[in-house]
Amino acid sequence: MSPDTSPPMGVALGAVAGAGRPGHSRIAAPVDDGVLDVGSLATAQRGPHPELLTAPNLDALLAAGRPVWREVWEWLTGWLADPERLAPYRLPAEGLTPVLPFSVADYVDFYACEQHARNAGLIFRPDSEPLAPNWKHLPVGYHGRAGTVRVSGTPVVRPSGQRGRGDHGPTRTLDVEAELGLVLGDTVPGPVGMDTALDHVFGVVLLNDWSARDIQGWETRPLGPHLGKSFATSISAWVTPLDELAGAWTDPPARDPEPLPYLSGAADRGLDVELGVHLAGDHVSTPPARDLYWTPAQLVTHLTSNGAGLRAGDLLGSGTISGPAREQFGSLLELSWGGSEPIHLSGGATRTYLSDGDEVVFTATAPRADGTRFSLGEVRGRVTPTP
Amino acid sequence: MSPDTSPPMGVALGAVAGAGRPGHSRIAAPVDDGVLDVGSLATAQRGPHPELLTAPNLDALLAAGRPVWREVWEWLTGWLADPERLAPYRLPAEGLTPVLPFSVADYVDFYACEQHARNAGLIFRPDSEPLAPNWKHLPVGYHGRAGTVRVSGTPVVRPSGQRGRGDHGPTRTLDVEAELGLVLGDTVPGPVGMDTALDHVFGVVLLNDWSARDIQGWETRPLGPHLGKSFATSISAWVTPLDELAGAWTDPPARDPEPLPYLSGAADRGLDVELGVHLAGDHVSTPPARDLYWTPAQLVTHLTSNGAGLRAGDLLGSGTISGPAREQFGSLLELSWGGSEPIHLSGGATRTYLSDGDEVVFTATAPRADGTRFSLGEVRGRVTPTP
Repeated sequence: MSPDTSPPMGVALGAVAGAGRPGHSRIAAPVDDGVLDVGSLATAQRGPHPELLTAPNLDALLAAGRPVWREVWEWLTGWLADPERLAPYRLPAEGLTPVLPFSVADYVDFYACEQHARNAGLIFRPDSEPLAPNWKHLPVGYHGRAGTVRVSGTPVVRPSGQRGRGDHGPTRTLDVEAELGLVLGDTVPGPVGMDTALDHVFGVVLLNDWSARDIQGWETRPLGPHLGKSFATSISAWVTPLDELAGAWTDPPARDPEPLPYLSGAADRGLDVELGVHLAGDHVSTPPARDLYWTPAQLVTHLTSNGAGLRAGDLLGSGTISGPAREQFGSLLELSWGGSEPIHLSGGATRTYLSDGDEVVFTATAPRADGTRFSLGEVRGRVTPTP
Repeated sequence: MSPDTSPPMGVALGAVAGAGRPGHSRIAAPVDDGVLDVGSLATAQRGPHPELLTAPNLDALLAAGRPVWREVWEWLTGWLADPERLAPYRLPAEGLTPVLPFSVADYVDFYACEQHARNAGLIFRPDSEPLAPNWKHLPVGYHGRAGTVRVSGTPVVRPSGQRGRGDHGPTRTLDVEAELGLVLGDTVPGPVGMDTALDHVFGVVLLNDWSARDIQGWETRPLGPHLGKSFATSISAWVTPLDELAGAWTDPPARDPEPLPYLSGAADRGLDVELGVHLAGDHVSTPPARDLYWTPAQLVTHLTSNGAGLRAGDLLGSGTISGPAREQFGSLLELSWGGSEPIHLSGGATRTYLSDGDEVVFTATAPRADGTRFSLGEVRGRVTPTP
């Protein structure tokens, strides 16, 4: 599957600039052959909450909460089912560029996939148990840099840093991590229990947690990743509302031990989203989000279990998604097994980590209740050389 | 030294609510016997940039950059030197409460004090070298939760969490960390070199990085602290502009090895700020910020060395400050040596970690060029029980 043979997108929302006054952006939705001006549609056709939908991005909508999100999603679903009526509200594709769909409040990146955690443990710490003792008891995660979250299409400059003792220069091991991102709305105090956790999830983005493995490896003890990650995180331009994913819920993997009571409940279900990782035009892997050990409700609940509140615009990354087979691995670290087994691309080229000029595209699909699949768009980024 | 015998405060800025319309706040400065309404003064007396100073907090001022900061600081310094003229602009203390002086963008907490890092290493990892191999090569740090940074005076609820395998409940080892916080202004792309790093530092706050040691210890491998820290971080209500600290610059400690070139330069100087840690009314230690191994310019430069930009409102914590003597340690972890040596308080009480109801106050002083010292205010918080 290449990006251009993906199925049609589902209902999704984002923001675009370039259609009208320079420097201004507006809320948009993807349609078959372009982009819908959601604010103009809402204003002209008396849609719900036009004051939220004529904003420059999704911030105000995210703050409005689930009843409003559902109302907007239902209204938009109705309009998108009848493309002919949309013609007056289509934006000319010429000159349009996506902008970050919302202002990121706090960004937390989890490590919720067992296969990835095992692979990373085997590669980074070959003489130890691959999973730390805590891994099956709680969703391990850390805060990333909200200020460097970028929209799909933004080039990624190869970062410089300390690659080891006294060794400073451009990273030699630039990597990607294929993740799902949860976009939170509302601003609520913690703790948030499993029974209401999903009420605060507006939707889902595709997320590329770009990583400089040499910088990360040297800096990471004892406080975790920092500059090896903080140079850039890319998210898709379109946020797929959780309501659109109603047909994608699936049972989580078997757990041993059982999660503690505060991480248990009916909302403990996974999302059957299948990602595609495309490197320099080749489809190199297909990570399955249904394999995530910790589910969206558990990530939200654990994050707030110490009393920390949520804010509209909080972004939670799942951590790299990897299935059991090599062709399901979600990072080059794993696909090249720590750089020891090059990936063969069509045309005869090989890669361990990224070369300057490489473009990486993640795509994804999810099922509807009828079994057909729809696209969640893409997150795209090209590596540019260190200046 | 107890909080109420501190020397007078220097010029500082913050925001208070309760003087006027409910829910609204305004920029203020501490004066001998109360609080100055800075916006009213600027408006009535044709001060510089009244549009920035009549805002609800320091956000717009932070975004304005160093030339504006200096202009405002010089103007305010002149007015504060003549207290009699200030009477019309004093706010009645009754009902005033400080609010968070600025919106925190990203919060990064460093680990810049060698004595603290050695103590923590000895306590947490007694069988290993106390400093990780990277420690003397780069300022180790991690991102914390911006959304739970609170202003001085906000109660701190004892967090619950996983204290170990299958063990969930209120933390038994609630601690404090005495730190300096750098408040950044401007929004600039990285990297920012040593020669300009301090141009982006608006000022300094006192910072208490509340920590639940049991939760932190269990969760921290391999990605670092998360819920053991993210429940609350307290900062002082008043931000002391860097210009006010002109007399406090001091040589950094000797380093071996020499910092790499990107971390070297004339701006590599420390701040001679002396903190006071007060627990339940007793002065228990006096951490010296001049002992920080990594200096403010190095923290800013390292943070951006991978290309990450800065945003107005970024907050950089120094990490716990500890001097070589026990009475200079900046955390209860160290003062009680991992809980094994209780601290004796006046009245016969003892503490290892915090009890419900305990109030912790950090104070600080810095020298002027004439050798007299002034106060940087305080950061205060009382522990309330888990609900």
